Amino acid sequence: MKLSQIGEFSLLERLRNRFHARSRGLLLGIGDDAAVIKTAGNTLVTSDMMVEGVHFDLSWSTPFQLGFKLVSVNISDIYAMGGIPRYILLNFAAGKDCTMRFFEDFFDGIEYALKTYAVSLVGGDISASDRIMLSVTAIGSAKTIVRRRGARPGDKICVTGTLGDAACGLELLRRMKRTVDLEDTKKRHRSPLPWETAVSLMRRHLMPVARDPSAISGKATAMIDVSDGLLVDLGRLCRESGVGARVRIADVPRSDALKTAASSLGLSARALSLSGGEDYELLFTVSPKRKTYGICIGEITRSAGVEVIDDRGRRMNISHKGYQHFADQG
Amino acid sequence: MKLSQIGEFSLLERLRNRFHARSRGLLLGIGDDAAVIKTAGNTLVTSDMMVEGVHFDLSWSTPFQLGFKLVSVNISDIYAMGGIPRYILLNFAAGKDCTMRFFEDFFDGIEYALKTYAVSLVGGDISASDRIMLSVTAIGSAKTIVRRRGARPGDKICVTGTLGDAACGLELLRRMKRTVDLEDTKKRHRSPLPWETAVSLMRRHLMPVARDPSAISGKATAMIDVSDGLLVDLGRLCRESGVGARVRIADVPRSDALKTAASSLGLSARALSLSGGEDYELLFTVSPKRKTYGICIGEITRSAGVEVIDDRGRRMNISHKGYQHFADQG
Repeated sequence: MKLSQIGEFSLLERLRNRFHARSRGLLLGIGDDAAVIKTAGNTLVTSDMMVEGVHFDLSWSTPFQLGFKLVSVNISDIYAMGGIPRYILLNFAAGKDCTMRFFEDFFDGIEYALKTYAVSLVGGDISASDRIMLSVTAIGSAKTIVRRRGARPGDKICVTGTLGDAACGLELLRRMKRTVDLEDTKKRHRSPLPWETAVSLMRRHLMPVARDPSAISGKATAMIDVSDGLLVDLGRLCRESGVGARVRIADVPRSDALKTAASSLGLSARALSLSGGEDYELLFTVSPKRKTYGICIGEITRSAGVEVIDDRGRRMNISHKGYQHFADQG
Repeated sequence: MKLSQIGEFSLLERLRNRFHARSRGLLLGIGDDAAVIKTAGNTLVTSDMMVEGVHFDLSWSTPFQLGFKLVSVNISDIYAMGGIPRYILLNFAAGKDCTMRFFEDFFDGIEYALKTYAVSLVGGDISASDRIMLSVTAIGSAKTIVRRRGARPGDKICVTGTLGDAACGLELLRRMKRTVDLEDTKKRHRSPLPWETAVSLMRRHLMPVARDPSAISGKATAMIDVSDGLLVDLGRLCRESGVGARVRIADVPRSDALKTAASSLGLSARALSLSGGEDYELLFTVSPKRKTYGICIGEITRSAGVEVIDDRGRRMNISHKGYQHFADQG
């Protein structure tokens, strides 16, 4: 069954019934010209887009994984401000030959994400397109906002988890060129790596889980989520704060799975942990006097720029281009 | 100059400088993981997408017109709830060979719309894509919400202006197949119609101005904006309210330009005013006792469905499919 056999109005009606949200503060959800929410204090809003062939590849992403990730990526931006996510709006565009199966699986992934983050889908629209185009707006609230600006010389630089996993998982998927059932523990897919190792990395790319900042946001002086790679995102935080940073390469957390995979794939785990994108860990700075939640990877410095120090304390020479749209990737 | 010669980060920096918004309630605009706004009471949120080749055609839309319309369409949804628009977030995706000229003209159109509606651009993102894909989220506030639900039998049905103009303008543009400088009053483009007539209709399609509901929202029992055509949108309002409607065809407002154009193009002005989309007039219902702002075109009835009455009081036999995505258009 294709979407074209159902029609936009029936599809919207299905979504309205499925996501008939009841949550505190929600006065009116899907089905009118706009949703109505009750807010007080600081409201956070962020919006992102995902385009087939640019942000995702259906050769290795299932619709379920795609739906989950789309929400995670936006929730991560609310978390990165120290906020609590509350609502999302979703725009979905797909070709006329898109199947109902795809549509339902995609919205299963959305629903799973809504439950994971305790948020409600309150609006958006669906339309035809020649390829899949998605956009999400996430809305949250926060008592205390943690900005990218605010890091001070001497502050510790911390992350909430291992880096480079998602980029390594993507590389694995590129080589395997097929979708993976992440929950399938019985059937062993053919993979160049032990299956548990491979799955843990691919999961980080396919279904990243945004990190709740509630243990951090009261203490952090500045914060950002790692979407484009540690060095790029740390560079952003430093530029906004008017400071620099020194990162000790040995202290950047790398998972055992990453180390195993990188050595067997001929990749550098260190390079992946510095420049690989889409880990969606939180990167934040705290006063050196504060007890630190997270893993300390370096310090904020007075001089501009991000430098990386090797095991012997020497400054490493690294080119750290992260991903950016509209640019030839080095 | 192409966007690929500038790169995403520089483009974002330009936008941040250009749209450095200062407005009441805005705590943090473009440049962090999320924007921060101060809200109180009812907050309205709505999001829409526009995809090249589906929602617009660059053979006859200029980037400036496109930017303006993208904002208008979303503001119209806030107005249709009786709200006051405050902020927008914008996602912009385009091909790598998209020119800086296009980008700047598009954002000129956005800026013109921001001024028109007194709203601020506070976030969003830009990314690469193989065609132009846009989404906007609009955020507003309202003391009193006017829903689609709420119309009662006996209520008058009113609209804020003439209908069918935008659809006729689109038909003109389809035939001319080129962009039009709507401000160009000196050079006369070749057109099958007097130029002022043609321009007024094309403007309604290319640069629709959303209707401020402040004179209406205190009185209206239900409201919607006319985006997919009078009969479709009135049908939605009726379904939500659990009522029907009787529309007098003679009372549906049609502009002189529409009448002139329709007769010379061999189209039916009446059909266009009933089924033509994208006029973005407000359609609302009010108690029969209330003095009416707007043009009364009929009454709400007890029986379900929308019927149209001709000049002699007879029920007309009309097929009123409006535009819907994922459906063969009848």
